Amino acid sequence: MAEFLHLLPPSEALDHLIQALPQSSRMEAEQIATKEALDRVLASPVTAPYPLPSFARSTVDGYAVRAVGTYGASPSLPAYLDLIGEVLMGAPTDLSVGPNQAALIHTGGMIPEGADAVVMVEDTQRIRESETEVLKPVAVGQNILQVGEDVKAGDTIMEAGVWLRPQEIGGLMSLGVIEVSVARRPRVGILSTGDEVVPPEAEVGAGQVRDVNSYTLSALVSRAGGDPIRRGIIPDSYKALQETTRLAHAEDDIVVITAGSSVSARDLTADVIGSLGKPGVLVHGISIKPGKPTILAVADGVPMVGLPGNPVSALIVAGLFVVPIIRKLMGLKEPALTPRVPARMSVNIASETGREDYILVRLETTDEGLVAVPIYGRSNLIFTLVRADGLVRIPPEATGLDMGAEVEVILF
Amino acid sequence: MAEFLHLLPPSEALDHLIQALPQSSRMEAEQIATKEALDRVLASPVTAPYPLPSFARSTVDGYAVRAVGTYGASPSLPAYLDLIGEVLMGAPTDLSVGPNQAALIHTGGMIPEGADAVVMVEDTQRIRESETEVLKPVAVGQNILQVGEDVKAGDTIMEAGVWLRPQEIGGLMSLGVIEVSVARRPRVGILSTGDEVVPPEAEVGAGQVRDVNSYTLSALVSRAGGDPIRRGIIPDSYKALQETTRLAHAEDDIVVITAGSSVSARDLTADVIGSLGKPGVLVHGISIKPGKPTILAVADGVPMVGLPGNPVSALIVAGLFVVPIIRKLMGLKEPALTPRVPARMSVNIASETGREDYILVRLETTDEGLVAVPIYGRSNLIFTLVRADGLVRIPPEATGLDMGAEVEVILF
Repeated sequence: MAEFLHLLPPSEALDHLIQALPQSSRMEAEQIATKEALDRVLASPVTAPYPLPSFARSTVDGYAVRAVGTYGASPSLPAYLDLIGEVLMGAPTDLSVGPNQAALIHTGGMIPEGADAVVMVEDTQRIRESETEVLKPVAVGQNILQVGEDVKAGDTIMEAGVWLRPQEIGGLMSLGVIEVSVARRPRVGILSTGDEVVPPEAEVGAGQVRDVNSYTLSALVSRAGGDPIRRGIIPDSYKALQETTRLAHAEDDIVVITAGSSVSARDLTADVIGSLGKPGVLVHGISIKPGKPTILAVADGVPMVGLPGNPVSALIVAGLFVVPIIRKLMGLKEPALTPRVPARMSVNIASETGREDYILVRLETTDEGLVAVPIYGRSNLIFTLVRADGLVRIPPEATGLDMGAEVEVILF
Repeated sequence: MAEFLHLLPPSEALDHLIQALPQSSRMEAEQIATKEALDRVLASPVTAPYPLPSFARSTVDGYAVRAVGTYGASPSLPAYLDLIGEVLMGAPTDLSVGPNQAALIHTGGMIPEGADAVVMVEDTQRIRESETEVLKPVAVGQNILQVGEDVKAGDTIMEAGVWLRPQEIGGLMSLGVIEVSVARRPRVGILSTGDEVVPPEAEVGAGQVRDVNSYTLSALVSRAGGDPIRRGIIPDSYKALQETTRLAHAEDDIVVITAGSSVSARDLTADVIGSLGKPGVLVHGISIKPGKPTILAVADGVPMVGLPGNPVSALIVAGLFVVPIIRKLMGLKEPALTPRVPARMSVNIASETGREDYILVRLETTDEGLVAVPIYGRSNLIFTLVRADGLVRIPPEATGLDMGAEVEVILF
């Protein structure tokens, strides 16, 4: 096994992998109902088939008028306008507003022919049934939303690569776009390895542990927009591991293997990954804690990630590498903003220069704001993560963090 | 319609509603497979059926030894130990380590009888096949993870009300808890009202607009852990609105109505909500922008929310009221931390004292960090939200925000 002498920083390591992916490494598009498209990624741009609004609308409750007839109006000298009717909601109106006329209109109502402004109801008074008194002048266009003011016909309303949030779903619906083309969810094959690993439903014998990584990684992949395919628990044998890895490599878009925890088990993983195609292993060892023994590879166009076996490292490292690869394959346009909250460190934390450290913390609410309390656990078992609210990154150039230092906690 | 003179601040308004809910307003529990339980809320506490780890394990690759035999060892004067075999992964070992003996062991391997410490392989050398030379002493317990060090049998590992993230799923699996009791997803009935509103798939005629709120709110509810039930588009008639609202009130756990945009349509919503049970409308009007005409009610134990009709206000206000009610009904223990990112305002923003303002912003990445750029759009149509990355809250005591002010952007 060739362990590279120089350990790459995480961002550089990821770039190596991304650059080794063929240009064509992109999920094909699928057509789905817009109402089912929440948290998917658009595969092609969407243009507006109509303008929005599609008719001139009032933005207030009041009276549609010709602005010129209100000039000079004041409470002491109102403009008296003949009331010719009411614009009903949801229907075309055949009212036509002439000079010195007004039509009652509601917010969102269609501006009738002849009118060029709307007087707010608050700026009027009704003494007689057939007349309204305007107490304040309006300018042409006032309180009217013009056709196409929000979106013009033919405008690109969403680019390919946009993540569809509730408001994008709504925006598409507002234009009658009830089907959209989205990137297929990348299939992420997940292999758990280790002679000691048994399924969660099994009784554990002496020396055995239950599979945790298959499930934490499946959950992470689902949240990131991928489709997790659990490929099972593979014993520490080259033949068995190669067989299942080959299957995952053939059928899935990304392959993730959590290595056994011993050095020899990790070497095995690297050997198998290296055997599946060109260019093979690109990065073996990253200047990060936890996660140093991480493997990044591309085999015949398929990205492959070898994760450390312990559940804490596996989940943290998958967040740093597997999630961005999923997003890349879906064609996500901009890197999603990582949700984080500002906090202050509760204690001093030491770290090694030249290495990116990730510290598990829980958050405590105090009168001075949030405090990040590191979670210590030499076990590196899953329950240290269960107790954590998020991660604090210590950059490679730092030698640690002082008590009270302002940090950003990356939320899980 | 009784519009209260004093507009309540949003948090107080929410408290009013929460306090009017019966103690029993809690979703019943349902038993589901742990692997399907991502982003659900635990309905009962989970205790550990076994300790973790369930056997004493090595935390390193090396040799299991009796610590006393390594005392005083150094590179110039190694401790010579007889190698009695290898601890295989995943199986009970029948090796027994006596004085001056050592057993080869891997990370995660079971500590054999007689051994009380593990020497790291880096601190040894092998000259002969049957012997290892220890170059550095170890203390009793060193490099060993003791039984129950992560979790003890009977420990409460997760309280009721915990949100299940990937690591909680993993933690449950590690203990063989393959089924969990979670709160049923609250059914949220969503009614869109307005004579002018037509379904997205319909052709729009003059004066008509497509339904947006049913879909943005469904998406928001799904993300928050609820089960959206779209109750359709209801015309602005008391009878029609009351009929559908009554049905939603009978079948759903929360009822959300987006009012028509005119004053009379909003009054209609309040009247219908007020007719469905005690105590009825609790809050009508909140000191918030957008969202002032929001209605909060409880009718015979069912929380009901009347939202403004325009899509931007509806979605923002639903995030502030509907989402916390969903979480409350699921029994979520702690309010979820709102994901936010720090940024600086690109311009001055004015706001009215005594009112909580929410400003839509997009984020721009600059050399000095993120800049929050307000999105103006007097239209208040859905595309101003599509262009936004998040919201900036201006607290009621502020008269605005200065250019360059540090703010936290609440991400969508």
